[in-house]
Amino acid sequence: MSATARLASFIATSSWADVPVSVRHDAKRSLLNWLGCAIGGANAPSVDLAIESLAPFSGPAQASVINRGRRFDVATTAVINGVSSSVLDFDDTHLQTVIHPSVPVASATLALAEHLAVPGEALMDAFTIGIEAACKVGNAISPEHYAAGWHVTSTCGVIGAAAACARLLKLDELQAAHAIGMACSQSAGLSEMLGSPTRMFNMGHAARSGFMAAWYASKGIASSARALEAPRGFGNAFTTRCDWSALTDTLGVTWELAANAFKPYPCGIVVHPVIDGCLLLRERHAIAAGAIERVEATVNPAVQVIMSHPEPADGMRSKVSAEHCIAVAMVRGAAGVQQFTDAVVRDPAVAALRRRARLLCSDAMAKDAASVCVVMKDGTRHETLVAHAKGSAEVPLTDAELEEKFRSLVAHGRHPGDASRMIGMMWALEAARDAGVVARA
Amino acid sequence: MSATARLASFIATSSWADVPVSVRHDAKRSLLNWLGCAIGGANAPSVDLAIESLAPFSGPAQASVINRGRRFDVATTAVINGVSSSVLDFDDTHLQTVIHPSVPVASATLALAEHLAVPGEALMDAFTIGIEAACKVGNAISPEHYAAGWHVTSTCGVIGAAAACARLLKLDELQAAHAIGMACSQSAGLSEMLGSPTRMFNMGHAARSGFMAAWYASKGIASSARALEAPRGFGNAFTTRCDWSALTDTLGVTWELAANAFKPYPCGIVVHPVIDGCLLLRERHAIAAGAIERVEATVNPAVQVIMSHPEPADGMRSKVSAEHCIAVAMVRGAAGVQQFTDAVVRDPAVAALRRRARLLCSDAMAKDAASVCVVMKDGTRHETLVAHAKGSAEVPLTDAELEEKFRSLVAHGRHPGDASRMIGMMWALEAARDAGVVARA
Repeated sequence: MSATARLASFIATSSWADVPVSVRHDAKRSLLNWLGCAIGGANAPSVDLAIESLAPFSGPAQASVINRGRRFDVATTAVINGVSSSVLDFDDTHLQTVIHPSVPVASATLALAEHLAVPGEALMDAFTIGIEAACKVGNAISPEHYAAGWHVTSTCGVIGAAAACARLLKLDELQAAHAIGMACSQSAGLSEMLGSPTRMFNMGHAARSGFMAAWYASKGIASSARALEAPRGFGNAFTTRCDWSALTDTLGVTWELAANAFKPYPCGIVVHPVIDGCLLLRERHAIAAGAIERVEATVNPAVQVIMSHPEPADGMRSKVSAEHCIAVAMVRGAAGVQQFTDAVVRDPAVAALRRRARLLCSDAMAKDAASVCVVMKDGTRHETLVAHAKGSAEVPLTDAELEEKFRSLVAHGRHPGDASRMIGMMWALEAARDAGVVARA
Repeated sequence: MSATARLASFIATSSWADVPVSVRHDAKRSLLNWLGCAIGGANAPSVDLAIESLAPFSGPAQASVINRGRRFDVATTAVINGVSSSVLDFDDTHLQTVIHPSVPVASATLALAEHLAVPGEALMDAFTIGIEAACKVGNAISPEHYAAGWHVTSTCGVIGAAAACARLLKLDELQAAHAIGMACSQSAGLSEMLGSPTRMFNMGHAARSGFMAAWYASKGIASSARALEAPRGFGNAFTTRCDWSALTDTLGVTWELAANAFKPYPCGIVVHPVIDGCLLLRERHAIAAGAIERVEATVNPAVQVIMSHPEPADGMRSKVSAEHCIAVAMVRGAAGVQQFTDAVVRDPAVAALRRRARLLCSDAMAKDAASVCVVMKDGTRHETLVAHAKGSAEVPLTDAELEEKFRSLVAHGRHPGDASRMIGMMWALEAARDAGVVARA
């Protein structure tokens, strides 16, 4: 069976009952993390701009912008929630492809699910299919696709969003193939834009275009039924090499949702093991920041190359400052969204410790590992080795850690809500009669 | 100056007064042809589906769907007019790149111009900039880009639509660069979809995404300011070879609008010289179809390969039947939109002559040339050689022929209107106080 036909069949005929219980739980973990990011990101200036830009062209109030009290049509809402859930750069990562799959898939799926007022289980089912579609397509074309300059989260995300919405709309196999085809023909996004707000709009537009692709197909608009593998199709145009067996042989057999990882800290991922070490030593030895002479972190050279910025200008740039990460971990005992604001960057205690942070490079150190040594003013040395960072494939975030991340994102949001109630709602999502409760959380 | 900066400068600082008078007239010719196609295509089933699909998510009535009496928000209207103006496959062709530039550019520009209620001259100015942007970018990446499987009308059209709308929105150079950047990051469309209705939606979405890119930039949303030439930018991702000097050295110096060609017949272009020959002989010798023994057309082999279909099933497929084209030219004395309907395909006189049409291939015959010989039942032979088809670069349609084409499209439209009044309005477009008169024609 060809790749497109196989994916269409998965969308149209796979059974939720066949999804392993652990994968269903993984779906809820991914949705909880995505919702937290959207809540926490809701007050970002880019979200204001997205709403201001789109409102004049928006249709009826069908779906909710997360944590903004605004409702727009499904397509517009998908764009805005795509922006808010990606703006903090705190969303999930499918490590094999570097796709952040929930942003495009959940932004489209939840908006449509709310509009259709389907049960929570239908949302989970469609979301699962969308994540698998995006990531399996990504596996088939990686790493050459990303290397060619494509923003893989949006280029594959549009296919995932289309797959999820096709499922919600109960498309048959041919319609689902046409939805995939339209999505392939709307797939877009350049990695050149990753340093600008267009990054978030790439993902928001992927959500929108994926929804529209499924919607058009539901109305009978045809496309190619072999969009992925055709000689002039998606694989040919978007990558120099693809292996569709990575999709056809594994869809519904292995689950990409189970390999979806969550960042514990909203900053450059290479410094995460250093933060782990700092937090561990601070707690274990009850370290007071004022008593620290210096912090020495032995790291993979990538940390030095990407993240040595001892004097970040503002909160945004502190997210790529290893020294700032070390400082807030030691001074504040945390490295969550609240620790990367302009105010914290200007905090004299944090600034002082940034200047006492040292990066020592070692080629022998893996990218998800680090050794941290805190040298106290009295000469005492506290040391630890972090073999795998929290949030890596080896040490995934526990449910409790995900909940803690969610709470901190809710506290950071525009209208801080009842995080415990929302967490309870997400863990019991399959029992919800109306998936819209998530969007209106 | 880099390609992006050069294009942004052209958008922000070029002067309408510097556009040659002949190019301004070419702009009106292209707009007249585009409007005719949109009017004639307005009753196609794909337009019904586009309206049905988009209406539930559409915003306020800001712009008019051509010849449908419906108004939607600017972005939605751009999609629908993109579908209607391309559905007959009768739109313009920039021969060097095979871009059909007016569909994405005019669909976006007119919708925004109507919403802003700008004068006719501002519409012409923005449209001209958009066509130049799309085609100059196309020149820089052709033919490798199309060969890689991209639907060049949509991939370059989105940039043209963004350029035109950026001009209407009076963006400065940096904003215009960001509009180009967002457009590059929304550029999409696979040629795999050319055989399906997704073809028209590719172009409609290019119009929409181009408009939105300019609109976002007007609101201050940033992108890359070197989207075309950056190492991970548009040129790198979308083609194996590009030469940006084809843009930087010629923008505002040579004019692609002057090289924009118009089809006289809404069918496969390779058979056009045969139709020319048939119509000429029919008129010159007052040939009655019933007296014809057979028609022999000596053609480039491409005609045989692409268009030998003596028994087309319906009106849609008769457009790629050389035999049907010969038959309607001889029986009806015309090959306009009215001659490619299901009813005409079933006409016994047309069907009879289709079976009397013969294609004789000759490698010596150029693609825009043909020799036609009509053999009468009495043995008389009428022959002619067409060196260049009407509508080719060598024999562009005259204004009178364009008007005739426009009239036939209006007659074919959903609500046939006063073609003469509309033609007069288009030739006097620079004097119109409100460009919206075109959209409401």
